[in-house]
Amino acid sequence: MNSDIILLGHGSGGRMSHQLLDELIIPCLSGIAVRDQNDAAVLPAVEGRLAFTTDSYVVDPIFFPGGNIGDLAINGTINDLAMSGARPLAISIGLILEEGLPLADLKRILESMREAADRAGVAIVTGDTKVVPRGNADKIFINTSGIGLLADEVNVRGSGARVGDKVLVNGTIGDHGMAVLAGREGLELKTDIRTDSAALHAMVADLLDRAAGAIHALRDPTRGGVATTIKEIALQSQVDITLEEAALPVRETVGGACAILGLDPLFVANEGKLLAVVAPEAAETALAVMKTHPEGRQAAIIGEVTGDSSGKVFMRTAIGGLRAIEMLAGEQLPRIC
Amino acid sequence: MNSDIILLGHGSGGRMSHQLLDELIIPCLSGIAVRDQNDAAVLPAVEGRLAFTTDSYVVDPIFFPGGNIGDLAINGTINDLAMSGARPLAISIGLILEEGLPLADLKRILESMREAADRAGVAIVTGDTKVVPRGNADKIFINTSGIGLLADEVNVRGSGARVGDKVLVNGTIGDHGMAVLAGREGLELKTDIRTDSAALHAMVADLLDRAAGAIHALRDPTRGGVATTIKEIALQSQVDITLEEAALPVRETVGGACAILGLDPLFVANEGKLLAVVAPEAAETALAVMKTHPEGRQAAIIGEVTGDSSGKVFMRTAIGGLRAIEMLAGEQLPRIC
Repeated sequence: MNSDIILLGHGSGGRMSHQLLDELIIPCLSGIAVRDQNDAAVLPAVEGRLAFTTDSYVVDPIFFPGGNIGDLAINGTINDLAMSGARPLAISIGLILEEGLPLADLKRILESMREAADRAGVAIVTGDTKVVPRGNADKIFINTSGIGLLADEVNVRGSGARVGDKVLVNGTIGDHGMAVLAGREGLELKTDIRTDSAALHAMVADLLDRAAGAIHALRDPTRGGVATTIKEIALQSQVDITLEEAALPVRETVGGACAILGLDPLFVANEGKLLAVVAPEAAETALAVMKTHPEGRQAAIIGEVTGDSSGKVFMRTAIGGLRAIEMLAGEQLPRIC
Repeated sequence: MNSDIILLGHGSGGRMSHQLLDELIIPCLSGIAVRDQNDAAVLPAVEGRLAFTTDSYVVDPIFFPGGNIGDLAINGTINDLAMSGARPLAISIGLILEEGLPLADLKRILESMREAADRAGVAIVTGDTKVVPRGNADKIFINTSGIGLLADEVNVRGSGARVGDKVLVNGTIGDHGMAVLAGREGLELKTDIRTDSAALHAMVADLLDRAAGAIHALRDPTRGGVATTIKEIALQSQVDITLEEAALPVRETVGGACAILGLDPLFVANEGKLLAVVAPEAAETALAVMKTHPEGRQAAIIGEVTGDSSGKVFMRTAIGGLRAIEMLAGEQLPRIC
């Protein structure tokens, strides 16, 4: 490469685009052969229902404790597929690069994407790169879209919660949001806070293997945190859900940082967590399955579906009170994912 | 909605995000029921090989003669699927919005997306919306990803060109690039130049119906124009291709504007054009099929695969000379798509 930063010409579609693709992007990724570049990737034959998802990542900063925008994007899209009960098959990458982005940063991000995809056993099969002039974007935005395959018996959806179901989470909440905050310039949280970004499809596959019919809803509490996601499930299922404050796993440093900054971990983004709404007779099994996975060691039953309603969520506080939980109202932390 | 512009809170994942989604985005789009919002869309069962593609759109300006960033994104992704020979099944939308974007502009863009998808008979099934602070993006960027299904007998690829094959284009070249230039502030081209943005999957389906085995390569000459795309096919197929300058359809106003601005229409982006490399015995049939479609009325045979090589492209000029054609070297027109 004749430059160590992204230039406008890298987005031309011409010679410089090909050079960037052949010398940097393709070697960093898996599953795309240089000579086979076509407008669309062709995947091996499948049979069954497909899951399809898309997410754009605009996190600021692009590198933060425990991860970067690249592995975040791969894990996030794998998780969105997993939350529908699908086995992830293939991922696409759409890059929007700001002129001036150091190629070293791009390389580091792409390598993280490849590592995350390899770790999850999912192929990155197609991609697109655009370059915009300085000031028209902020360093790099990444879209990842994903295709998954659903087994016949799987029927997991936000509208699936029923009265009596238990609500589980696979570990501590608020880690990702606070890690991104910690990574922001000027804010020095000298702690061990790291993003929880992780792919959860293996855990979901195990849950479905052991208790397919009992897993009524799965969702990853990203933007808006656990509170907003529980409220979404309550509204979609038209049920009341009551959370137990004392049961919520919160890392001490995360809780402390939230207290200092006036944030509630219940509303802070997670990127390696799932909420599972599970039939009561299968709740202990599901909890045990979660705990066999590294991402589920601190799994807990945090609440219950307590009634039919128009979608109310309550928190039973540590001192026995009951307070209503609403969705995040405005913007708590812009560009958190 | 309590505001007439996009606010940071619309990207929070919380109440304002849901309001934007339920009151503006979902009503403008098709195929997503408000109550069924899940992390991934579930598609009906399919059987066969899948095509998968992604593209981000960063065109500037977002509205230009004959179209806008919305229908451009839908048509572009449909075309990428069609160029692999696939029947488009479903499209995802990833929006990155700049704080301050007028909701009226967003609405107009989303309505164009829906109209383009409806016209093509393709469902928009899933989406994602992010908001970044003012100055961190330029108005709106759109990623569209798409899934298509490939018939067993289809085998269209950039490496498929063979000596003797004819090269066809379905109409005039350079229209999109010049339309975007005409739309840029401060540049007044008082002409009838309009983008050629259009979905080409119906034409491709007809071509494959009539001459499946004879259609060796299909590609849409977007960024980098016809020259760059032909060069890509020549390199991937390891053949020489010779174009006939006199046979290239160029709208008079586009040719004139290119001349004034010092641009070569051969390198200017198209968004409703395809290049087809076709076995010689099927070339006239393919040409006739193209001409039955509104997007193919000015279709022409513009060249031929003239030899085995390492991928050279030549242009036989109107006065009989032969000049070598290379890919677009740098950036001709930033943010053209």
